[in-house]
Amino acid sequence: MSFFDRFKTQSYAPSGHGGSYGHSGFPPGTHPDVIRSFQMVDRDRSGFIDENELQQALSSTYQRFCLRTIRLLMFLFKNPHDPLRIGFKEFAALWSCLGQWRAIFERYDKDRSGKIDLFELRDALYGIGYAIPASVLQILISKYDNGSGGRVELNFDCFVECGMIVKGLTEKFKEKDPKFTGSATLSYDTFMTMVLPFLVTYD
Amino acid sequence: MSFFDRFKTQSYAPSGHGGSYGHSGFPPGTHPDVIRSFQMVDRDRSGFIDENELQQALSSTYQRFCLRTIRLLMFLFKNPHDPLRIGFKEFAALWSCLGQWRAIFERYDKDRSGKIDLFELRDALYGIGYAIPASVLQILISKYDNGSGGRVELNFDCFVECGMIVKGLTEKFKEKDPKFTGSATLSYDTFMTMVLPFLVTYD
Repeated sequence: MSFFDRFKTQSYAPSGHGGSYGHSGFPPGTHPDVIRSFQMVDRDRSGFIDENELQQALSSTYQRFCLRTIRLLMFLFKNPHDPLRIGFKEFAALWSCLGQWRAIFERYDKDRSGKIDLFELRDALYGIGYAIPASVLQILISKYDNGSGGRVELNFDCFVECGMIVKGLTEKFKEKDPKFTGSATLSYDTFMTMVLPFLVTYD
Repeated sequence: MSFFDRFKTQSYAPSGHGGSYGHSGFPPGTHPDVIRSFQMVDRDRSGFIDENELQQALSSTYQRFCLRTIRLLMFLFKNPHDPLRIGFKEFAALWSCLGQWRAIFERYDKDRSGKIDLFELRDALYGIGYAIPASVLQILISKYDNGSGGRVELNFDCFVECGMIVKGLTEKFKEKDPKFTGSATLSYDTFMTMVLPFLVTYD
């Protein structure tokens, strides 16, 4: 079973004992693996996990993401009214999103090297739903350029990091451009309030 | 001599042998201490220093800033066409700016605790030239809230970090609002190009 196939059935609910997860707090139909991954790390049964627990919860099925990526994931998926922690519903949404992104990453990683280059990144982000201009992509990947002059390639961790930055900023922009005109008029306060949370959370 | 006094004479050029620094690449009138600090860490005499060297160069006169602050300083002061490195001119400007900020920090740190609180931060940022709305300030200091419920206080390192984030974003915004109307119309591409470099550099 390919990685992609593993996530195609995310909405699978075990027949016969679907009700056994009814009180877990997870959305109906959440795959038992997702619930198990959460419960394994939520040892105090608080219903919330922190960044280290999230890193651990994703390790078994995905990989050990670096803490920078984990913080970005938490920031983008957490309830906006909560501090930096992830509950049942948010974990299920995050898991599902990662599954889709993993499938897209694998589709564009044609030689199965575990890495994608700039052009594959452009196509993969397009696959996720973001058409990113070349100039913006160049800034984005400069982060991963080690200065050796070689071709910059991104593993899945870096791809998720890039994609989440794009997703987060694009969603913020769209809130201010609800008619999708491609431009938005922002006051200074609005601009700062839109952007600062990324800089504050993400370090 | 207070810390403030130490920096009041930044444009001092030693009389009699002012010319001895003429070939250093530093702007005329740069204080010999600034030149010495740079040369001490630029061991290969390349005329450029990296983040670790900058951290070291500032240590003797200021303090050992954390690498996050150092990277932000480099990003904001470096030549935009250069990679992440600092030359003579940029180092002199950065040093001078830190001196002014240190003086302002000390002015608002009335009890000489080495820390300032939210209201003092607001006044200090105002002293630097930025009138930051309370909502934006709240986001900014949430970064330093350890969740204990206690009052958030910032040391000089954190103050510089906060201030540089505000300075960088505000300058970017002003470029798009040259008549200072308080609002700017940005295309999606412009918005992304304005903000991404902060996220890419600063981690």
